[in-house]
Amino acid sequence: MPQLLPRARASQESVFARMSRLAAQYGAVNLGQGFPADAPPAFLLDAARRAVGTLDQYSPPAGLPALRDAIGADLGVDGVDVIVTCGATEALNVLALALYGPRDDGSRDEVLMLEPVFDVYLPQARLAGATPVTVPMTLDLAGGWSLDLAALRAAVTPRTRALLLNSPYNPTGTVFSREELTEIVALAREHDLWIISDEVYDELYFGEKPLPMRELAPERTFTVGSAGKRLEATGWRVGWIACPPGQAGQGVAANVAGVRQQGSFCAPTPLQAAVAAALPVARAGGYYEGLRAEYRARQDLLAEGLRGLGATVFLPQGTYFLTAIHPEWRAETLVQRGVAVIPGEAFYAQHPAPEGLLRVAFCKSRDEIAQALERLSVVATTPV
Amino acid sequence: MPQLLPRARASQESVFARMSRLAAQYGAVNLGQGFPADAPPAFLLDAARRAVGTLDQYSPPAGLPALRDAIGADLGVDGVDVIVTCGATEALNVLALALYGPRDDGSRDEVLMLEPVFDVYLPQARLAGATPVTVPMTLDLAGGWSLDLAALRAAVTPRTRALLLNSPYNPTGTVFSREELTEIVALAREHDLWIISDEVYDELYFGEKPLPMRELAPERTFTVGSAGKRLEATGWRVGWIACPPGQAGQGVAANVAGVRQQGSFCAPTPLQAAVAAALPVARAGGYYEGLRAEYRARQDLLAEGLRGLGATVFLPQGTYFLTAIHPEWRAETLVQRGVAVIPGEAFYAQHPAPEGLLRVAFCKSRDEIAQALERLSVVATTPV
Repeated sequence: MPQLLPRARASQESVFARMSRLAAQYGAVNLGQGFPADAPPAFLLDAARRAVGTLDQYSPPAGLPALRDAIGADLGVDGVDVIVTCGATEALNVLALALYGPRDDGSRDEVLMLEPVFDVYLPQARLAGATPVTVPMTLDLAGGWSLDLAALRAAVTPRTRALLLNSPYNPTGTVFSREELTEIVALAREHDLWIISDEVYDELYFGEKPLPMRELAPERTFTVGSAGKRLEATGWRVGWIACPPGQAGQGVAANVAGVRQQGSFCAPTPLQAAVAAALPVARAGGYYEGLRAEYRARQDLLAEGLRGLGATVFLPQGTYFLTAIHPEWRAETLVQRGVAVIPGEAFYAQHPAPEGLLRVAFCKSRDEIAQALERLSVVATTPV
Repeated sequence: MPQLLPRARASQESVFARMSRLAAQYGAVNLGQGFPADAPPAFLLDAARRAVGTLDQYSPPAGLPALRDAIGADLGVDGVDVIVTCGATEALNVLALALYGPRDDGSRDEVLMLEPVFDVYLPQARLAGATPVTVPMTLDLAGGWSLDLAALRAAVTPRTRALLLNSPYNPTGTVFSREELTEIVALAREHDLWIISDEVYDELYFGEKPLPMRELAPERTFTVGSAGKRLEATGWRVGWIACPPGQAGQGVAANVAGVRQQGSFCAPTPLQAAVAAALPVARAGGYYEGLRAEYRARQDLLAEGLRGLGATVFLPQGTYFLTAIHPEWRAETLVQRGVAVIPGEAFYAQHPAPEGLLRVAFCKSRDEIAQALERLSVVATTPV
């Protein structure tokens, strides 16, 4: 019998899918995978029920024009530079294929990213034929996470082709400051690098509003976004890429759309139509403000509870995750005791993970968070 | 400014997307892109309206278990060997990445396919790092399309890794016979090749029921299927791969799912749920029989009309396309005269296309077909 390629045999179930599977198996409260407990807003659901039966056939590969325009209006860019994808995962994969890969001389482009790293960045870079190079964030038990700009600068080589950043940052919760982004942009310009700015949590922040990377470096920034994260519908598979603006419609967006159509042709049309209708309603109706307020409350509930059980908690500036360290907790055993979280090791591939690091989601109901804390309190008094 | 990779700069708008765009621009009847004029069946739409608001978050990357089981039951395979994708386009892309690519010695796998070739097969093979090799079908003006098995056999090299076949075959409409499939399987076994059997039109046939390739070569066949094609919802992005069966759950499906999750994580969950509910209803309720009867009637209408205008028509055994040759018609000018069809050249990359070949879709309404014929009758008397 023939064999699958090594790159396929090396493909493993993602830690998020695996922890959700284990959570179901052990009846655990699932504070692991980042999907919300709440339903999407009614204005989105109603729009989808209207679109089903009306817009059921292929959309153009770049997306329904109405959705491209709605995303453009929301982000402050031209809709012709927006490409709609089957979720942000596909957006990231399309950009990997379009921006870095193998060279004719047999060398491979390098793409710089930070560690802890969102899991899919690494295999996507490898499938594209490039080499992912990670630079570790600094974790200080008292001060939390910080970016080591000198280390980022030192990691650039003549083969570096792109910087792949995530702000608000899953899993650390970091929102990069204007000063940090300015330095990153200077580095990218100095070495003529693309910037892929994964901003799927752009509306989930708890302090100052995150500054979009594209505002500092419009000429080289691809912004990745997600209707699933913004509108609490992670299973809908509607994401986007906002490309650097073209001139007279002749930008890179057309080529990016060409790569995109080879992956899955187009995103689900009726759900695209629903998101197109929902984006302006969410913006005008204060939906994101409500989401932030609610998640802030749940974050406080979780953080306070975890601290009370002896954990060191690193509060996020954005995302719906927090990171924490507890000397006695390990994700693999916690799930068997009824609480699923993501082990820190899952976000580390090229550097050692901080001992005992866990990512805990608070996009879950208050009841789930309370129940998880109760179960953890038993674990805390019964070493595993 | 940095440049996109050559593979991205070479990405072009697909001919199907382009002809639909031109059809809209010129107000043409669109007999080009293969999406149906009719709405999806009510039992599918109702199921989707119920699923929206209920199943809105990530599914497992391999798909909702209920859908994997429903597909498995429909195809007569085990649901654990079924992987759900964002449409058949993604299924084909996942298999390209899993089955063929570059080798450590710098060589590239070859994948054999037939020409005329469905457009996405070629760029997907190249993006995977493999070399697509096409073998031309024979077109006889009197006898229609036929498979040249000797040419297929002669095209196998030590680097050949897989056969990629499509039956019912877009655009020729060929349904391969048991004898032809048996010879193909013998060839695949002799050279230890994978078989990718694109069977998205499996329920759209006009003669004998197509024989699924997996029944002849279960150990090496990946079947690609599409809810969009079966249930008239091409924009829903729910497709599948039925993998060679594993033993004790240890098949290749887990690795294929691993590749699949890197592309778009999962297919749209509420639409997956709707398809899971609809597949057994479609099977038990005679839905496919009704579809075939209706398309048979539209095919007759179109074929008769085209013949009356001087075209040579090659009737399909399956799919909702026919191919035709008219000495005076060219797709690029027809669209400006109000009828969009796909030029034969779009399906040829490595061999010359038959002069004047066109693909014409009859998944459109009888009114649209009648209007297209009327417009073509004017073209026929007014040379372009």
